[in-house]
Amino acid sequence: MDDNIAKIIFQPSGRRGEVPKDISIIEASRLLGADIEALCGEKKVCGKCKVRIEEGFFEKYGIDSKLSHVSGWQEEEEKFINTQDREAGYRLGCVAKVLGDLLVFVPEESRAGKQVVSKAARDILIEHNPAVKLFYVEVSKPTIEEPTGDFERICAALEKEHGLKDLKIDISTLRRLPTVLRQGGWKVTLSVWLDQEVIRVRPGKIEASYGLAVDIGTTTVAAYFCNLATMEVLDTVSMMNPQCKYGEDVMSRITYHMMNEGGLKKMSDDIVEALNTLIDQALSATYPPKKKVKKQKGEQGPDEWIEVPEEGKTYLRLTREDIEDITIGCNTAMHHILLQLDPEHVGMAPFPPVIHHSLDIKARDLGININPSSYVFVLPNEAGFVGADNVGVLIAEEPYNKDEIQLIIDIGTNGELVLGNKKKLISSSCATGPALEGAQLTYGMRAAPGAMERIRIDPETHDVDYKVIGRDAWRQFSEPKEMKAKGICGSGILDLLAELYKAGIVNKSGAFNKDGQKSNRFRKNPDNRQYEFVLAWAEETSIGKDIVVTQKDVRQIQLAKGALYAGCKLMVQRMGIEKVDKVKIAGAFGTHVDREKALIMGLFPDCDLEKIVSVGNAAGDGCRAALLNRDKRAEANWVSRNVEYIELTVEPNFQQEFMGAMHLPHMTDAFPHLKGLVPEEILNQK
Amino acid sequence: MDDNIAKIIFQPSGRRGEVPKDISIIEASRLLGADIEALCGEKKVCGKCKVRIEEGFFEKYGIDSKLSHVSGWQEEEEKFINTQDREAGYRLGCVAKVLGDLLVFVPEESRAGKQVVSKAARDILIEHNPAVKLFYVEVSKPTIEEPTGDFERICAALEKEHGLKDLKIDISTLRRLPTVLRQGGWKVTLSVWLDQEVIRVRPGKIEASYGLAVDIGTTTVAAYFCNLATMEVLDTVSMMNPQCKYGEDVMSRITYHMMNEGGLKKMSDDIVEALNTLIDQALSATYPPKKKVKKQKGEQGPDEWIEVPEEGKTYLRLTREDIEDITIGCNTAMHHILLQLDPEHVGMAPFPPVIHHSLDIKARDLGININPSSYVFVLPNEAGFVGADNVGVLIAEEPYNKDEIQLIIDIGTNGELVLGNKKKLISSSCATGPALEGAQLTYGMRAAPGAMERIRIDPETHDVDYKVIGRDAWRQFSEPKEMKAKGICGSGILDLLAELYKAGIVNKSGAFNKDGQKSNRFRKNPDNRQYEFVLAWAEETSIGKDIVVTQKDVRQIQLAKGALYAGCKLMVQRMGIEKVDKVKIAGAFGTHVDREKALIMGLFPDCDLEKIVSVGNAAGDGCRAALLNRDKRAEANWVSRNVEYIELTVEPNFQQEFMGAMHLPHMTDAFPHLKGLVPEEILNQK
Repeated sequence: MDDNIAKIIFQPSGRRGEVPKDISIIEASRLLGADIEALCGEKKVCGKCKVRIEEGFFEKYGIDSKLSHVSGWQEEEEKFINTQDREAGYRLGCVAKVLGDLLVFVPEESRAGKQVVSKAARDILIEHNPAVKLFYVEVSKPTIEEPTGDFERICAALEKEHGLKDLKIDISTLRRLPTVLRQGGWKVTLSVWLDQEVIRVRPGKIEASYGLAVDIGTTTVAAYFCNLATMEVLDTVSMMNPQCKYGEDVMSRITYHMMNEGGLKKMSDDIVEALNTLIDQALSATYPPKKKVKKQKGEQGPDEWIEVPEEGKTYLRLTREDIEDITIGCNTAMHHILLQLDPEHVGMAPFPPVIHHSLDIKARDLGININPSSYVFVLPNEAGFVGADNVGVLIAEEPYNKDEIQLIIDIGTNGELVLGNKKKLISSSCATGPALEGAQLTYGMRAAPGAMERIRIDPETHDVDYKVIGRDAWRQFSEPKEMKAKGICGSGILDLLAELYKAGIVNKSGAFNKDGQKSNRFRKNPDNRQYEFVLAWAEETSIGKDIVVTQKDVRQIQLAKGALYAGCKLMVQRMGIEKVDKVKIAGAFGTHVDREKALIMGLFPDCDLEKIVSVGNAAGDGCRAALLNRDKRAEANWVSRNVEYIELTVEPNFQQEFMGAMHLPHMTDAFPHLKGLVPEEILNQK
Repeated sequence: MDDNIAKIIFQPSGRRGEVPKDISIIEASRLLGADIEALCGEKKVCGKCKVRIEEGFFEKYGIDSKLSHVSGWQEEEEKFINTQDREAGYRLGCVAKVLGDLLVFVPEESRAGKQVVSKAARDILIEHNPAVKLFYVEVSKPTIEEPTGDFERICAALEKEHGLKDLKIDISTLRRLPTVLRQGGWKVTLSVWLDQEVIRVRPGKIEASYGLAVDIGTTTVAAYFCNLATMEVLDTVSMMNPQCKYGEDVMSRITYHMMNEGGLKKMSDDIVEALNTLIDQALSATYPPKKKVKKQKGEQGPDEWIEVPEEGKTYLRLTREDIEDITIGCNTAMHHILLQLDPEHVGMAPFPPVIHHSLDIKARDLGININPSSYVFVLPNEAGFVGADNVGVLIAEEPYNKDEIQLIIDIGTNGELVLGNKKKLISSSCATGPALEGAQLTYGMRAAPGAMERIRIDPETHDVDYKVIGRDAWRQFSEPKEMKAKGICGSGILDLLAELYKAGIVNKSGAFNKDGQKSNRFRKNPDNRQYEFVLAWAEETSIGKDIVVTQKDVRQIQLAKGALYAGCKLMVQRMGIEKVDKVKIAGAFGTHVDREKALIMGLFPDCDLEKIVSVGNAAGDGCRAALLNRDKRAEANWVSRNVEYIELTVEPNFQQEFMGAMHLPHMTDAFPHLKGLVPEEILNQK
């Protein structure tokens, strides 16, 4: 190992690589494209480049000394970093130098380019029947003749006017009741959970209440912030799952728990903190943004910053208490880690979860900061790793109400598959790994500004055209230096493999087709002597070097797509059918997927192009359905116990199918629908 | 005000009075009979006399500078009091001198004489049907063919073998489930609450579970520690209500809340801490006592103290988790303060409580340290101050199942009355104050060793015979110095007024009968020029001075008994009846009450002596019934809303009845059943 080289991972971007020692962390971030804010140009005077050193050394699960792999504390840092933050490992990126391997966390405020939210809410049909409903009542004041207690007074009115019987009340809400009743002049609005329990009381007549539908993925966490009364989605917020630092896939998180005393609690605390951050993020958008405006003479205010509300916009100014319901969907491992249920057994055959059934847990018992009496509804698990998130997909897509046989593929760090119709549904999961989401590739990155999200390769010239996030014009319509490409994200990766194959740059087996190259983009890397294909030249990038795809990168993508294809095929065999009627692609990047490219690369068995549809973040949609319609909760429990789970890895021919599926689009299976999409000579390669 | 005199209150004994300044706290405690442990005889070497200075100055609710009314810190104290305790106000009683008014708390370990537990459990008939029941199941291991989750596996067995359906499980228990299931080899015992929720899981087959029935009084807190399976009462534990420092009666506690920001939380925290102390106290009795035994050569152990188990006794060695259910009864004010519900309105006409209905609250939400998934059942309130404790009395005595008309008097700091039979029940409360419990009198004290609990006065000689707690022989069979009397407790106070009256020492109006005195026990106090009657001469006491009853003391007792009598009478009038069929006396000292004396002093209207019964701590018995029989909980809710509450203080003739009832036994009412018990000439006094 080279003594002058250090390995660095930047979180949450996931950017990683080797850098020479003795450069500053900010320089390292530039080399790896992690983009730390540096307003002053490293003059050590703006304090914008604060980062937190997470680990000074890392081998998977082996964690050693902290902070020793960075240079010592400097006087300049004291101005921007207080003692508490210093103890937590904060440093200025322009001051601290890399002395060894590092895991560096770049806080939101220090990030130059924010991650692009790709989990926008789809329009799906949801019947309005939320678990939390508002009821307005007016009651009379207690008198000597009628001195009944506050709660019984309310109950009598709720029964008489709204037919609610045998209500309970949470202790936290009961504590507010006497004051609010009197504040409201004996007119109050009550939030009632499932017609069973009073969970909030507010003075006067109020018609709005809010909730959050959360989809906790292995890599990202997304939340829909909804108005429970109107069903409107006010905002969609998302962030990295902070557990990524413990391992990128579910198995490595489970292993982290097994190898580390207190590891489960640590991971759980991290995701809870993330949920609270998302909540605050959603709420902050209901306040006017703070603008830096010079205070006018005579104006009130503590400093030069004055709140300037946007013209013509009314802000809701909501607080944590205004969130009265939360639904959560996630795979079984994320589910167990969130709830601090031992995930060990879910990671070993026969993979039994601790619980299948949905759970209603007081938000306070999980440390989630919303209305203190409110519940969190956690969707039920199916089996194995096919968890509550897949149940979310099911109740959003309702294949159990259809005649046609649907194959629903939820692509995330873990791939989940459902096949069937109203007669029968089967499910399974496959470890696609994070490759399809942009991790593990040399220039892979999350969907953020500068990420190549669409790629086209000219079959004649092998020239590359592409589009980056944050810029509308494609490469061919731009000046090279305007592109500022930084890496490739999920949707770009799917394009990439299909285009490489279609253009004959790689062959059926995924190997570079050394004889068929048509440009200088294909080359042998002078440093590591490996073949690679240049996607963007250094001048087009913001990282100052060529963005390439290597043979290893192609193999990573093949492994992921092979696992998915093999899973689909085994399920089709299990169902005893010839072909599927419809393929639905769900998942974080489902909306961006080019169905033609997906078919070309062989993500799933052959299918009529017209029958391939993208359903976006269907898991999140299911959580939203459960938030806005209580009946969907019962439906979720029903379906979770009525989908037959198939453990693919124990199927006798899994390994064989997996090998065949690594090929493009498949070693032996026919793809009649690719006719016309891919040149005959390429399709007919051996 | 005399500059050389300071006022001191010792807690929790409640002993109070004036002492000369510049004496040590331990000397002051001796003067007031508060009994601080002083093994070394004030040589400042044993450290046993640690006390905590609560307030250096006190006027009701006005709290000023702390610690300034004691002399400065001395070097000798450092050996026994660490910095943390020093900051909390701890001092050695033999070192710290009284410089001004003080409120001093004497910790349990520094107390020379422990309070006598008088709230022993009575034998009452309770049907066995506890809210928490144990279920043993054996399930099969998950396999690839049957990989169902842990909880569903348990549920299937519980439904098949025990008929339990739709069970929920608390998150805290769910977290233990996978480990315990495997520990127990798939054989476990589950604790199920009300056939609805799994609240504990233990490996193997277990047949015992435990619970606590708690009666929170204004002055004392008592708990029955029960085996839920056998209904056996393992132990009865009790202590002072630590809220006494905020005021002795319910109104002063409510006032404390209104006058002090955060006062409610403070009082609630104090009672919760007391409950946790009682729990630990109950548990500690399930371990062998630690005896100071010299370690033998070669024996293991960290120091000279070795655990020596008692011969032939098996210890249960229970932990907090072994307590799986708690029921709590208390008056409305104590109820609201415990639960942090604003008690302000319950203290003002028309006295509406925040809630009547019973509550099931997770123990963890109240900070009560038992099995983390368990509930606390708080009995329902009736109305006004007649709270859950009175509901306890009702479900223990069940007057609603009887034909005869019962008058049930629950005597505590607050008196609660119930009258009626199966046709109708009415209730009310009256502020008896703490006089009948031994507070507020010159030599009043709690029921503790040295307290005069029975008193007889010879009508001929006016000589006094008495018995003290902790000594079987009466005064007349003892040497004077053996008596070591210290004061008068509740039951002695009832005896006292009846005996003073019967012997003609006080007349019908309660005034000393100056012309009829027959001994030198009646005298004018040379210091304050007030008349007093000597009950015990200095040589018979442990406090070195005569124990007397003053005219003011007699008035205090009259006020209390007058309030009770007036309440009873107004209720009888309200019911439109002539007389009651039965009188039941309940309450902390109910077991010690001499019914003849109670009738003579006029605690309640005339009644056949045979029909007066003591029912002991019926409120506590009711809590126990609710603990051991779930049906009693529904019964409690039913009765709480079916007793008609009467607010006595707003009855037009309350004041007049109160005045008449101050007399002995009453100004005008006839007491035919006193014939033969009290001399005719005394009964016929005008």
